[in-house]
Order: sequence, then C-alpha cells, then structure tokens
Amino acid sequence: MSESHQEGDNHREQALAQAFRQVRAASMRFCEPLAIEDYGLQAVAETSPVKWHLAHTSWFFETFILKPLMSGYQAFDERFEYLFNSYYNGVGAQFPRAQRSLLSRPTVEQVLAYRDHVDTHMVRLLEDSTSTETPTPEQARVVQRCVLGLHHEQQHQELMHTDLKFNLACNPLFPEYRPLRGRWLEPAAAALAWHDFEGGITGIGMNESDSLFCFDNETPHHRVLLEPFQLASRLSTNAEFLAFVDAGGYQQPQWWLSDGWARVQQDNWQHPLYWHKRDGQWFEFTLYGLQPLDPSRPVSHISAYEADAFARWSDARLPTEFEWESVARQHPVTGQFLDSDHLHPRSADPANGPAQMHGALWQWTSSSYAPYPGYQPADGALGEYNGKFMCNQLVLRGGSCVSERQHVRSTYRNFFYPGDRWQFSGVRLARNGRRDA
Amino acid sequence: MSESHQEGDNHREQALAQAFRQVRAASMRFCEPLAIEDYGLQAVAETSPVKWHLAHTSWFFETFILKPLMSGYQAFDERFEYLFNSYYNGVGAQFPRAQRSLLSRPTVEQVLAYRDHVDTHMVRLLEDSTSTETPTPEQARVVQRCVLGLHHEQQHQELMHTDLKFNLACNPLFPEYRPLRGRWLEPAAAALAWHDFEGGITGIGMNESDSLFCFDNETPHHRVLLEPFQLASRLSTNAEFLAFVDAGGYQQPQWWLSDGWARVQQDNWQHPLYWHKRDGQWFEFTLYGLQPLDPSRPVSHISAYEADAFARWSDARLPTEFEWESVARQHPVTGQFLDSDHLHPRSADPANGPAQMHGALWQWTSSSYAPYPGYQPADGALGEYNGKFMCNQLVLRGGSCVSERQHVRSTYRNFFYPGDRWQFSGVRLARNGRRDA
Amino acid sequence: MSESHQEGDNHREQALAQAFRQVRAASMRFCEPLAIEDYGLQAVAETSPVKWHLAHTSWFFETFILKPLMSGYQAFDERFEYLFNSYYNGVGAQFPRAQRSLLSRPTVEQVLAYRDHVDTHMVRLLEDSTSTETPTPEQARVVQRCVLGLHHEQQHQELMHTDLKFNLACNPLFPEYRPLRGRWLEPAAAALAWHDFEGGITGIGMNESDSLFCFDNETPHHRVLLEPFQLASRLSTNAEFLAFVDAGGYQQPQWWLSDGWARVQQDNWQHPLYWHKRDGQWFEFTLYGLQPLDPSRPVSHISAYEADAFARWSDARLPTEFEWESVARQHPVTGQFLDSDHLHPRSADPANGPAQMHGALWQWTSSSYAPYPGYQPADGALGEYNGKFMCNQLVLRGGSCVSERQHVRSTYRNFFYPGDRWQFSGVRLARNGRRDA
Amino acid sequence: MSESHQEGDNHREQALAQAFRQVRAASMRFCEPLAIEDYGLQAVAETSPVKWHLAHTSWFFETFILKPLMSGYQAFDERFEYLFNSYYNGVGAQFPRAQRSLLSRPTVEQVLAYRDHVDTHMVRLLEDSTSTETPTPEQARVVQRCVLGLHHEQQHQELMHTDLKFNLACNPLFPEYRPLRGRWLEPAAAALAWHDFEGGITGIGMNESDSLFCFDNETPHHRVLLEPFQLASRLSTNAEFLAFVDAGGYQQPQWWLSDGWARVQQDNWQHPLYWHKRDGQWFEFTLYGLQPLDPSRPVSHISAYEADAFARWSDARLPTEFEWESVARQHPVTGQFLDSDHLHPRSADPANGPAQMHGALWQWTSSSYAPYPGYQPADGALGEYNGKFMCNQLVLRGGSCVSERQHVRSTYRNFFYPGDRWQFSGVRLARNGRRDA
Repeated sequence: MSESHQEGDNHREQALAQAFRQVRAASMRFCEPLAIEDYGLQAVAETSPVKWHLAHTSWFFETFILKPLMSGYQAFDERFEYLFNSYYNGVGAQFPRAQRSLLSRPTVEQVLAYRDHVDTHMVRLLEDSTSTETPTPEQARVVQRCVLGLHHEQQHQELMHTDLKFNLACNPLFPEYRPLRGRWLEPAAAALAWHDFEGGITGIGMNESDSLFCFDNETPHHRVLLEPFQLASRLSTNAEFLAFVDAGGYQQPQWWLSDGWARVQQDNWQHPLYWHKRDGQWFEFTLYGLQPLDPSRPVSHISAYEADAFARWSDARLPTEFEWESVARQHPVTGQFLDSDHLHPRSADPANGPAQMHGALWQWTSSSYAPYPGYQPADGALGEYNGKFMCNQLVLRGGSCVSERQHVRSTYRNFFYPGDRWQFSGVRLARNGRRDA
Repeated sequence: MSESHQEGDNHREQALAQAFRQVRAASMRFCEPLAIEDYGLQAVAETSPVKWHLAHTSWFFETFILKPLMSGYQAFDERFEYLFNSYYNGVGAQFPRAQRSLLSRPTVEQVLAYRDHVDTHMVRLLEDSTSTETPTPEQARVVQRCVLGLHHEQQHQELMHTDLKFNLACNPLFPEYRPLRGRWLEPAAAALAWHDFEGGITGIGMNESDSLFCFDNETPHHRVLLEPFQLASRLSTNAEFLAFVDAGGYQQPQWWLSDGWARVQQDNWQHPLYWHKRDGQWFEFTLYGLQPLDPSRPVSHISAYEADAFARWSDARLPTEFEWESVARQHPVTGQFLDSDHLHPRSADPANGPAQMHGALWQWTSSSYAPYPGYQPADGALGEYNGKFMCNQLVLRGGSCVSERQHVRSTYRNFFYPGDRWQFSGVRLARNGRRDA
Repeated sequence: MSESHQEGDNHREQALAQAFRQVRAASMRFCEPLAIEDYGLQAVAETSPVKWHLAHTSWFFETFILKPLMSGYQAFDERFEYLFNSYYNGVGAQFPRAQRSLLSRPTVEQVLAYRDHVDTHMVRLLEDSTSTETPTPEQARVVQRCVLGLHHEQQHQELMHTDLKFNLACNPLFPEYRPLRGRWLEPAAAALAWHDFEGGITGIGMNESDSLFCFDNETPHHRVLLEPFQLASRLSTNAEFLAFVDAGGYQQPQWWLSDGWARVQQDNWQHPLYWHKRDGQWFEFTLYGLQPLDPSRPVSHISAYEADAFARWSDARLPTEFEWESVARQHPVTGQFLDSDHLHPRSADPANGPAQMHGALWQWTSSSYAPYPGYQPADGALGEYNGKFMCNQLVLRGGSCVSERQHVRSTYRNFFYPGDRWQFSGVRLARNGRRDA
Repeated sequence: MSESHQEGDNHREQALAQAFRQVRAASMRFCEPLAIEDYGLQAVAETSPVKWHLAHTSWFFETFILKPLMSGYQAFDERFEYLFNSYYNGVGAQFPRAQRSLLSRPTVEQVLAYRDHVDTHMVRLLEDSTSTETPTPEQARVVQRCVLGLHHEQQHQELMHTDLKFNLACNPLFPEYRPLRGRWLEPAAAALAWHDFEGGITGIGMNESDSLFCFDNETPHHRVLLEPFQLASRLSTNAEFLAFVDAGGYQQPQWWLSDGWARVQQDNWQHPLYWHKRDGQWFEFTLYGLQPLDPSRPVSHISAYEADAFARWSDARLPTEFEWESVARQHPVTGQFLDSDHLHPRSADPANGPAQMHGALWQWTSSSYAPYPGYQPADGALGEYNGKFMCNQLVLRGGSCVSERQHVRSTYRNFFYPGDRWQFSGVRLARNGRRDA
C-alpha cells in the first residue's frame, strides 16, 4: 500500500466502518450457495479452501490492526496466528499451504464466530479512529491498514471464485456453484479489428496527485518510451481459439515458448483448462456446471504459454503491460465485473475504442512482474505483500467478471506464473505498429 | 470369501437381516462425534474420508448383491458405480484414490440417503432370501455375499478409526475424536517372559469342517512344519520401545533391514508415528487427543521395519504367521476389542499363557502375505478382494482395540506394506527355541 | 558365508592362490571388448559402471582381508574406502550409489593399478596363509574370507553383464558388447510338458555335512512340508510369451498382482524389457546388439510381475523356492553357464527330467526372500552381506547363461525386487498337484 | 543471427576459413588436459558431456550448412542427426538431454573423426563461397551461417568449462581440470565506490549501421528511458559475500524473493555453489581443484536469487540490463577473458570508471529475458536459436573469464534461470539515483 496516497481518502473515512461492513458481508454472500462440505476443498496447493479464505482475511485485520493497534484486544484463538498466516515470514511460521484442506477444525461455524469477533472489534476501532478531526498517527495507521485490508479481502473474494471453480471441477459430477439464470449462448462477437497507437513517452503507474488507493507495486509513477503498436478491438474468442486447437496448435512446437512446450508435453495439455469433449461436442466447465462451449465468449482459463502460442499462430503477440496501460487509462473502468452477477465472461459489445479493456477476463501481458524504478515496499511484515513475488511471474491487467468493480484500476497489476490456468485469464492480441506511421 | 464354508452359517440366516441392521448401524455410531467437516478429510491416498467409507460399503452391497441379484432394483445414482469403486477392475474404472477428499458432492446428507436406499432394499431382499426352507442358488448367493459384505463393512469400520486418526493428527490443534472418560495412565505391565513351543507339524488356516465364515485368504487348511520357538508373554510396551529410541536405535543402521533404513533416512523417522516430544516430555496422539506417553501400554503405530529393528536390538525377532497361529488357536479369541469402548491399547493383564494374543494391537509377523498352497480366489470381480494383494506386504495377526470382536479369528490374516504405520500395529517378540528341547 | 562349512575346502586351499588368479583374471577378460568410454556407464542407480565393479571387488579384498589381516599393508588410496564401499554401514559411509558414473577419476588405468596392487598383496598373503599344516585362526580367516571374496567377485562378474547390457540398451545405436559368432535362430523348443511331484517333507538348504562353500542365506538346513505339485518341463519361450502379449495381457488387469498392475500403468509396460517392434517385426536387444526375436529361446528379462501374470494367464503359477529346490537337488548342476560362451539363453534340449533347471535364466519363484529358521548372519560388517535384504524381494533360482558354473548350487538363493527386469530372469511354470495323487 | 548486419563482415570473409580453423581448434585445445573418462560426465541434465559439445557443434555446421548448402555432401552418420540435436524441433526429434552421458558410443575417437569430416568439408565449402567478388545468395548464406556457427561454438566452449567444472565438482576427490600456475591469492580489491548516472533516453541493442555480427536477440536497436541510477565500481567480492553468509543471510527470509526462499529451503542452500567449509576454513572448488577462498576475488557461481538477496541486504539492488548497457557501451570491451589463461575471476584493478564491466564474471541483471520491440527471429529451425527461451529467465551481461574476448559485446545478452548457479556468474550492485540530481 502506498501510504502517501491515502490522504485523499479522508472524505471516505467517515464511511469506512460502513465500507468495512459491506466488503465483509460480500464474502459471506459468496458462501450462500455452498454446502458445508464445499468449504474445505483444496485440490492443489494453489487453490485454498473457502473456509481458509474466510479465516485468513479475518486474520489479516487481527494481525495487522487489532493486535498491534487496539489496546486491550484479546485474540480469538492464539493458535490461529500460525494456522491462517499465508506467507508473512515477518509474522512467523506458516501452516503448510498444501495442507489447508486438512483443517477440519476449526469448523465453519467456528470460523464464522472468528469473523464475528474480528468484525465487532474492527467496527468499534474504526468508529474511534475516524471520530476526530485530526487523527493521531495511530488512528491514521488504522485507517490506512483497514483500507488495505479491504482491498486484500476483495482479492480473496475473487480467489474464492477461482479456487472453488477449480476444486469443483475435479468432481466428475461437475457440480454447479449456483444455477444459471437466463440463456447460456451469447450473441455473436463482432469481427476482430486493430487499433493503432503511436507510442512515445507515456506515464505509467499511479500518479501521487491522484490521491487514490493503490497497491505499492503500482508506484512510483514514471515514464516509459513505447514504440508504435496495434491492439486488438476485443478479447479473443472461443471460436478463434478452437481454430488453433483444430489446426493442431497443441501438437506443433513452433508456436510455443520452450518452457511452454515442455509443459504441454509434461501435463499433456490439449485445450484450455476447463474444456471437455464429449461425443464430439465441446463443453466448458463453469460456475454454472458443464455448459456447451460458446463460440462468442472470450476464451478463458488459459495460461500465458497458451496465450502466447495462440498469438504467435495468429501472427500477433501479447501486449506489454505498458502498451496496455497507455491505452486503458484513456478509457473509464467499465465492463463486466462481479456486480453484473454473471460469473462467466460475456461476448464483447461492439465499441468505438477497444472493448473489454476492463472486466470480463484478466489479460495476459508479455511483461515480467518487476518493480517500477524507485519502488519501495512498506516496512515490516506488510512489506511482504507484493515485492517478494517480483520474479518468474507475468503481469495480467484489467480485472475479470469475478472482480469487484471498485477494486480494479487501469494501473492495477495482477501477477501469476506463466503456466497458471485457474484464474479467469484470457488473451488480447497486439502487433507492432509501423515505425513510419 | 470361501463359499464352501458358508453352509454352517444356516442357523444364522434367519438372523441375517438383524445382523445386517446391527453392522450397518455400527458404522453410523462411529460418526456420532464428528462434525460435517471431518467426514471429508484425506491426508494421504491411503487414508480415505469417512464419507467415502460410508458410501463405498453401501456400494459393495449395491454392486455385488442388489444390482445382479434383486430383480427390478433401481440404482440410487448410476454415477456412484464409478465414484465409490475402490479397486475392482472387474466392475470398471475407479475414481482416483488420492482424490477422494475432492468429492464435496455428494454431501454427507446425500450419502446417508444412499445408505438408507441400500439398507431398505437389502433388508427386503434378505427377508425374501432367508424365508424358505431350501434356498434357491440365487438366494444362497445373496446370503453368502451379504455375510461377506458385513465382514467387509467391519473392516472399513476399523479403517474409519485408523484413517480418521491419521487425518486428525495432521491438524496442529490435535483435535480429539471424542473425549476420554476415566484416567489415562494404566497400571504397570508385567515383566516380559518367554513361552516355549515345540514346533512340529501344525495345521494352518480355516478347516473346512469348522463351517464358519472366513476370507478366502485363510484357506485352504494345510500343514506346515515348525522348528522350536519362543514367544513373548505380551506385546512390547512404550517403555521398552523408548529404551530403543533413547539408545539411538533410529540412528544405527545395524538394526535395520536395508529398505527400512532407507525409509528412516528418507522420511527422517525418529520415533513411532504419533509420538511428539514437547519440552522434554513425550506425548502420543490418540483418538482422545494428545496424551502423555504411557510407559505401560503397548507401543503402537509402528511399521514392520521399526518392529523388526526393535526386535533385532532386543536380541529377538518377529514371529512367523505360522508360529503365531499355532499358539493363538490354543486360546479363545478374547481381549480388548471395539466393544471394550476404549480406543487405545491398554496394558497387558498378567496371564497364564501369552497375553494379548487377540485384540489390543495387530501384531506384525515376518511372513510375507502369500497364497496358501492350493489357494483359489473366487470367480469374477469378487476374486479381486484378496488375492491380487499377495505381494510386497506382510501379514499381521490378532486384531486390535478398534476391531469388532466377532470379526477376528485366529486364522485371520491382515496385511500391510512393511513401511505402513497408520494402523493400530504393534510388536510381539519371538526367538528361536532350542533344537534339542 | 557359513564359516562352519569351510573345513571341507582344505584340499582346495593349496590351490587358492591359483583360484584367486583365475577369478580375478575372468573379470578382466570381461572387459576386453570394451572401449574406455563404456566403463563409466550407469543409466540408473541399480546398474553400476564396469569400472566401479572392478574397483569394488578389489575393495572387498582390501577391506575385509588386507587391511585387517595383513600386517604392514599400505592402502592403495585411503579415499577409496569411501568411494567403493557399496552398502556396508559397518565399514563407514558410502559414496551415493546413483552417482557412480560421475567418478571419471580414478581413471580406468588407475583402477587397474588398484587391482594389481590388491592382487599382488593377496597372492602373497594367500601363499603365507596356506603354507602351514595347521593354519592359525588368522590364517584360517584369510582363507575363509578369500573364498567368500571370490564368490563375491563372481556375483559381480554376472552383474557386469547385466548392468552393461542395460546401459548399452539406452543408446539408440544399440551397440553390441561383442559380435555374435554362429547363427542366431535356435532349433524349435520341445512342447511344454508337466512333471508330477509328491511333495511331503523335504530337506532345504545347505547341509552342514556337505562341507562346501555356501552363502549364509542358504543355511541352516531344515525341513519343509510340501503339497503335491507339478513343474513345467522347461522354461517358457518367447513364442509362448508373445501369445500373452498378443492376447492383450498387458492391457488386462485380471492377470496382474495389484502392485504389478500399478507398475504396468506407471511405466507403460507393453512387453519384456528388451523387446522392440520395428515395422511390425519383433526384435530383442542382446549383448550381440539388436536381433530378431527368436521364438524358441526362453523369454528373458521379465519382472516377477510379468512372470506371475503370464503364469496366471497360462492357468498356472510360479513355483515356490522350496518346490524348485526339492526338484533341482535331484539333478546335477548342468546347463548353459558362462563357460558356454553364448551370452543369451538358448532353447531347451529335450530332456528326461525337467530341462533347464540350472543355467540359461534365473527362474522367479513366488517365495519372498526370508531367513531360514535359525538363520544367523556373520558378526561385523560382513554380516551385512545378505541378511539385511530379507524384505520386499523375491527369490530366484538356478543361475543363468552369464553365471559362472562353479558359482551356482541347487541351494543358491538369488533375490531381486519383483519389478526388477534387468537380470537374466525368466519363468518356469508350476501347478498344484492332485492331493489324492 | 541478424542477417542484415552481416554485410560489413565482407572484409573478413576471405579470412573466414582461417577463423573457422582457429575456433574449431580452440575446442580441441580445451580437451588437452582431459582423460577419456572425463569426456562423458553429466551430473545433471543441464551439464552436457564434453564429447556431446564436440559433436553438437559439428552437427550445427553439418545440419545448417553442409546438408542444405553443399551439393553432394554425404553425412558422416545419419543417426547423428537425432543424437546430437540439442533443441531444434524444426530439424526433428532429439535424444533426451538428461541421458547424454549414456552415449558411450560413438567413442571420443569417433566424434573426433566426425569433427574432421565436418571440418574438411566446411573448409572446402568456405573457400568456394568466398572466392568470388559477388557471392551468390547461397554463398552468402554459407558465410552468414558459418559466422553464426562459430559464435555458437564459442558459446559451447564456455559451456564446456562450466559444465565440466560442475561435473568434476561431484567427485569427492575434487580433481583439477589442469594445474594452477602461479600463486592463488590475489592482491586486495579496492574499496567499493558508487558511480552516478543521469539516465534519460538511451539507445539499446545493436545499431544496424554498426555492421558487426550479433545475435538476433540484440536487435532491433531501440530507445529506452532510464531514471537516474548508481552503479558499483566493481563486482562484489568473496569477502563481502562472506559477511552476508556470516550474518545469517541464508537463514533470513526477509532478504529473499519468495521463489528464492523456497529454493533455499528446498535445496538447503547455505553458501555459493562451490564453497566448502573444512575444519572451520572456507575453500572453493575451481578448475584448479579445491583452493582456499580468496577474499579479494569476486564472488562467483551464485544464482540470481542469491545475488538479489545479497543486494537487498547491502541496501542496494541489481541493475537492469538497460542501465548496465548504457554504461558498458561507454567502455571498450576489455577485461579478463579466456585469453588471459586464468580460469577463475581475478580481483578488480583500480580503474577510473566502473571496473570489470566486461570479463571476469557474467553479471546478473534484474531484467527478464524478453524480446526487444520489433524483434523478429529468423525463419526456419534457426529461428529456434534464441526467441523461444524468452520466458522465465534473467539476462546476464558482460562475459566471463571463460568467454572468448571476440565473442563478447556490450549488447550481448546471456540468459539463465534465476536459480542457475553453475555459470561463472557474479553480482554488481546498483542503486537508485537522486531524481533531482
């Protein structure tokens, strides 16, 4: 969290307790369709159980706010410090990530009691901290960390969708998270077109004068020099990706990065993560269960390796995160977010500029997740939030249909390993522009 | 199941429906202390979730009795044939064993409905099948397979204890399965003494004229020739095993089989599976949570490698299964079984003959699990029950404190890999006798 | 080594130095066709480099005889104690088995100098030790350990063949160890017939009065009780095994032990280790390079899992080691050994009794490698020779075409894991006899 | 290879046959100290045997020049196309990398004959191709590919040093590649100082008008915008890195990237790759065998994770490849290269500008290996030379003491995975400059 950017949030502070309640309630709303048995699922180390997400997000408030900043606070259960620490070495050791499904205790009921305990104390502390004209440094820190904690919880709300989807998909019964309302098949997507951009020197990252919340990895604002480039008018569709599959793309090494091809071989990838072929027909596993593959919707749940190979086969490439941001900041943050209440990316609306810049699917870029020049993580354990992951991962941009709208910005940098497929990730093509343009 | 041994069970047939109800109810009684979250735990491939055990034992009746032998039977859910098949290739493909914890659906409630469905039809079929003086061959098969299914379910009742214990033990909160009633520490065990046996030709296995149920691997009855030997008067205790630990036994290769020593190194074994040292004191995880290590109780949850190394260090050896059986059949099947309602092995009572021959703990033998001369598995998928496991495993004898008393016999052959530790397994020492005795 | 059996070797002692020279020379003769590059090959941990075998067998004499029993002996290089120790924890730590191919130094030339150094001192010591009428205990120990060391070297001579074969087979050029002389295809094998045996009480193991060398695992002599059985008249042939392959045997779980089927799946076994299909024709890799599969020769280089599955498919089973020995001791130790100078098993001669009881191929038995009743390994590090491997392995009997004739006895127990395939191992079928016969 | 940059090499073309002979001879000169046994070593998949390098570099000329461009050329052995293909899918399948040590055949002698065969034909073809005033397109291609092949061989000459060093280091005898001449300990290094740089727009990559050879990954020339920064005056030394080790750096997660810390834990890293502690003294394995750790020499054989953690502990960071290049192009390419004939990095000379910008050790940058804007790999299989590796790797700059001087440029981009340690890799620190400077 970039602390210097928080001052402009003053007008929101009075409402912080209310925001706190809303965000926390959203996590519980996610759980409504679940059976108790669903809370504990964890198919691989990366996909944590819902119950763990519920506890860990509470742990974040307890560890970074209630324990250090609320006098007289009594921990709900001291053993949770270890159980629900994700990766903060500065706090202490962590229960092994891959074994989170083994924690049948505390039960869901006990974790909900833990949430209640944290919520009660947080609301009391927030009301104290925002009641005065001139907050003390401690009070200011409560506010700043609370804002960070809410964004942290929104990240985990998205992960609850992606992790649960992956975990349910391992069940051959293909259970739905909740029933689909309305019809599945979308109207046809507009033909893909190319938009030209001049490049040149462009500002990247959160500007300090913007006075909005952002994560530390979006700072400092700085300038980069771009060559001319072109960007596709929308995300690539299932129909377009199916052509790559049908052309034998997964059997032809020439389209693939070396590490990508090794992965294709090792894990026998033949198509995107959730595609299934039955009796010659393609289906896709969704949070609405197994559905026919919709040719108009954007292809989703692909790794960067697949996005890159598809781009090469398409005589194109992935955009850099700087190219992407230079375009995205010209557009408002509109699109298909979680409030659209449809948990799968819809087909693109025809639009003037490039469509689907925000929402629908996270868009792989070719940019390695690296610190911006002059980047400084926070002191202490909170400094482990972002910086230590700046290696081996690629940046994704734009948010998805399971992201909260208020959580996404044009400067927002998401990051995953190039082989990761369980996020709502898709591909927007780019090309080099003409130098003499 | 040895079908030819079933005739003598006729007198029990009228009561079979009642036995069916009792055994099935025992599985449900096991579940009473559980939270819903506990039903799905699976820490390693070997330790199946309780829910899976509940479903699989029902699947056994449905697959081998209701579907082939009850006309007009409608399966509860055809997809369960695949989901809850354990290892019967003759029935079809199996859902991967290591992923059973990923089946949040069917829920516990749905699995209980499945059990009800199977129970209702089984009771109806049993009443039909046992109502006539002279059963048809089909009716006789229903009876025979039902008896087998009940013994199968009793095996799984034991596994529910051992698997749940292992799975709960992975939780650093060390949850108890149920609270301990009474005091933990036992009276001191009697000093270990040796009993002499002459050897000679002895009958092994179930005699056809005994007309009792047994598994096919206990047949045919045959003779073996034994050399003179000695058998310890009771199981070895925690105090005795602790002396081995304290003497550096886990650091000294000379006591260990080559494969055992490799395992000690690879998995960094330093003591029995459930022992924990805290602040210089030894504790043991039990179904009653973490308890002080009781020196008087038998050492439990050790592998055959540990049992063998301890025996060698003790200037003794493991008995063969034939030595064991030749002694055990001189004794009634008495001892600490599940009906004692204490879920941890108690210390040995002083006794005339060797104590603890049955109950308390399964006793590792040095005998590889192999077919008896003339052994014939059943035809069809049921023939996969035992025979295909006759390689790489060792025989354990005697039953344990989580075995049903009626389930255990002196001829009963249990079998696990020599490195397995999650069963209620212990060690009884043996020695060579004098040849001139 | 069973020390008490050595007295009868007295008449051989005068000739021991000569025997020493002959056995040591045989190891060098094996190397004649090799390029320097071949000496270092090690494809898997189990298949040691030839150079390592040459050094380790010298290490055995140096470690167990020269260092402890020859006064004033100077080690060739003290660092070799660690480098060339195979598995004797009593001697000290061992260089990791899987990394033996990384020892480019010492070079082949240096290892041969090491052998010369050991040989010179051994011959001198042997001449001293056998020169007196009444040897001192130390001299007797030199003689006993030297006899053991020579049998140890003969075991490694066989392993040099099997290991080199495996290692060369990894080269897609399929290099031959040496050229084939004579024609490849053998005359047709006689039809398989069955020989009946009564069973009853039979003596097993080396009799103390036989006063011949044997390994400790062949003792003590004891009696076992056998049921009636039948034994096949010869080893099973490639033609017979090919029928199993063609019938889909490797795709049908019903023939396989559970662990065997898991291995078939995991390693994608489709046929015996060295078989290759090219343009619809079967070939077999041999020490003479790639050769057409000869239908008349015995099937070789199969695991016990394959032998067992083939036996089950053939409505037969593997013999126990006791059944095998009870028959073999009725026959002289004749057959195709290394002195036949043909490094692949030949087809069976018609014979009165069962043919190929010795030589040609090691024959898998169904018997787990276990200690005989009363078995006692030697004291000290030499006690690690055999006993610590008595778990998880199966016994093979009879010797092979790459065994030295003098090395093999009817009581000889070879042992490998049931999944091992790189030995010259084959299958002889057995069946239960009629009880009333 | 950037074909458009080759025209300026015309004046070198007459001398190309001579350059060919020289480069090829250098590979053979490397082998002079080797025993035949050393040629086949391969401890891990990454470190190929010397023999394989000798064959593969010949394969490169045969595959990309002789076979397609010399009429009537007869391959030395058609089977080598598969055996010695490294990773060119466009050429065909490849013998598995991890198994190269298993190719005892072809022998060293046969590989040298292969080299002779290729050399003879290459020289003949080169003389034909450079004899005319105006080369045909085919002749021009021979020249271009030959230049590429020579740079390719120089890369492998460096790898022969790094791979052999790793492979020899696995031998507990610590064999030297060749004896050290002169004294080992270097004069003390000058104190580390900082040089300031303004940043701004700078040109990166090979300029087309420079008309020198470069690899395709150094093109196209383009501009980047740099913030002010500081660069250390020399590489960091063993003494400086030892302070990090002694301060507990390998035990403190706060200095490490998340993936780096995971690697430290998994592989139990405690110090740089070749350091050994014996009786309280530090030693380092070198191509001259085990030597005392010299405090003045640069720390070498560290991963990017270690370089990055050390930098963070030093309150500094790694430079980007753009920062590095912007400074390096101000300096001539001087330093300790292979022609210095000392195979370990020496301590830094005092210098005006930053010392050791070239030579001594490859310097890790924080830049992911990514395509420059507008990058285009060559068509066909040669296009697999560089581009397909542009993921998951980091760029190293500057060359090392085992690089050929003519092979290194300020624009040269080397690349390895951040966890790789077997290269001659070190660390030069950087810091952010003052923005108002």
